Amino acid sequence: MRIGIDLGGTNVSGGIVNKSGNIVYSHSVPTEVDRGSQQVVNNIITVIEELINKKSPSDTIEAIGIGVPGIIDSDGVVIECVNLNWKNIHLKKIVEETIGYTTYLANDATVAALAEAEFGSLKGIDTGVLITLGTGVGGGYIINGKMMTGPNGLASEIGHMVVGDNNIKCNCGRTGCLETFTSSTAIIRRAKVEIINAPYNLIELSDFHKKYYKNLNDITGEIIFKYAKENDPIASKVINDMLKYLAKGIGNLIVTIDPQVIALGGGLSRAGDYLISHLKEKVELERIFKAINPPEIVLAKLYNDAGIIGAAFIDKYVE
Amino acid sequence: MRIGIDLGGTNVSGGIVNKSGNIVYSHSVPTEVDRGSQQVVNNIITVIEELINKKSPSDTIEAIGIGVPGIIDSDGVVIECVNLNWKNIHLKKIVEETIGYTTYLANDATVAALAEAEFGSLKGIDTGVLITLGTGVGGGYIINGKMMTGPNGLASEIGHMVVGDNNIKCNCGRTGCLETFTSSTAIIRRAKVEIINAPYNLIELSDFHKKYYKNLNDITGEIIFKYAKENDPIASKVINDMLKYLAKGIGNLIVTIDPQVIALGGGLSRAGDYLISHLKEKVELERIFKAINPPEIVLAKLYNDAGIIGAAFIDKYVE
Repeated sequence: MRIGIDLGGTNVSGGIVNKSGNIVYSHSVPTEVDRGSQQVVNNIITVIEELINKKSPSDTIEAIGIGVPGIIDSDGVVIECVNLNWKNIHLKKIVEETIGYTTYLANDATVAALAEAEFGSLKGIDTGVLITLGTGVGGGYIINGKMMTGPNGLASEIGHMVVGDNNIKCNCGRTGCLETFTSSTAIIRRAKVEIINAPYNLIELSDFHKKYYKNLNDITGEIIFKYAKENDPIASKVINDMLKYLAKGIGNLIVTIDPQVIALGGGLSRAGDYLISHLKEKVELERIFKAINPPEIVLAKLYNDAGIIGAAFIDKYVE
Repeated sequence: MRIGIDLGGTNVSGGIVNKSGNIVYSHSVPTEVDRGSQQVVNNIITVIEELINKKSPSDTIEAIGIGVPGIIDSDGVVIECVNLNWKNIHLKKIVEETIGYTTYLANDATVAALAEAEFGSLKGIDTGVLITLGTGVGGGYIINGKMMTGPNGLASEIGHMVVGDNNIKCNCGRTGCLETFTSSTAIIRRAKVEIINAPYNLIELSDFHKKYYKNLNDITGEIIFKYAKENDPIASKVINDMLKYLAKGIGNLIVTIDPQVIALGGGLSRAGDYLISHLKEKVELERIFKAINPPEIVLAKLYNDAGIIGAAFIDKYVE
């Protein structure tokens, strides 16, 4: 059996995962970010110890892994984690010294990519990328069947690729990042601006405008996609521009990583086939040299449990 | 001994390279692009056979490699080569069947990166990128000490990364590519526009304008850098913008590849320390998360012979 831990801003969730990728026992505790990094690390250890205690005596622990929403270097140090307000926390070392087992760490988007590689949309793929479209934009690579995160853990931080000139400052420090064009945060901000600035002729045609003009703070990414699917002119414009820049980002992945498959995960990917079919049209416009086919673009298959499942299999994908 | 071939648009140049990276015998013939791909392939074979015949009887051939200015897939097929007007030429297969030796192929920028890894600025580096700044912009990766070009040979085609919105159509089909901001072609075009549109107050201050207003077609990348070094306001503006976008491209490499060292080669890199010091200032502005140091930025060390030397060592860097 394997143990996977999904370290989130709200909860530390863990599970015993069997070789088929099923979570046979799970346990979670609040992360308690505001009580500081030492408490958060204690909570992680509590969850791991609970899971170790619950295994049947005949089971051996094949691997323990933790998915972390931050940047992890090749020594297992969490260099930066904005959500947890962490800098340079030696998580791997602390956990291993306490529990006495080798522990593997990876970024949460990489972990989600590993879950897809083991059981989902990237299964059997030599070179693939998972793009997670949520409040931020993350990425995870499978390169020659292994994970690749780079010496500083920055490879696959694709949300921070510059894809245009928008003068919107990203939390990474740059402007024009993919995340500032294509995250739910970005499209919600953009939708508010489009509603506020809508010309009269569009207002008349937009149910999205009618419903949310006085309720701007109720807008979610899901709602924008819902109206875009109904061809609402304002919502469609927002999604059209989002997909244009997402396609530029995919074009950049093609000329830096050359993936055979690109899988889309994260909350916004629940827009499903609408997202995929409209995105493919935009990617066609960003094709590099017509002789070469673009990568396949598909939906991720694992959602809520990908963080635990992928973490349990990190060891299989370490180079 | 090793044999390296540098396939260029004008000449097919080859050399016998010893283990110290010295070319001990060289031979070259015209490429004859206009006589078609079969003739070009024959010329490549002629050069290889001449080199094989010149080796001393006691020497064994350790490897034969060819650097190609195009996109090569993992089977050694040249999928696209704009300069030679090639599409889907099975170069590896044809050469091997004729000469009877295993032959390694790689893109010319990758080959230059391998030469740097073996004998130059990337020696001993685990993860590094060579950026070639010439009439186009190319890239070559060293990842975990090996080359990485991707299943379709598109990884490291970094000249075609989108880094801004400029509406300039690249020969790859996209707009906003790094190459359209930072190649010598790009800065020459930009310099002409800046000279033509220069306001009166700048004209008075610009020797660059005075000298080239009536000789626009004499402008070269080297000349623009020369005037920028003298603080000419028009030339400085062109170089400043070039470096701004080159820094965005380097920022994108950081979040996709995470290199420890970035080496600059190609004709424009002859601007030397001026290029490096001004570029570093711009890269500082594109830093991702302040906790993580940017990669080292250095000049490539091998110039004219890098194509032959790198080609002779491709086999050592195949994954």
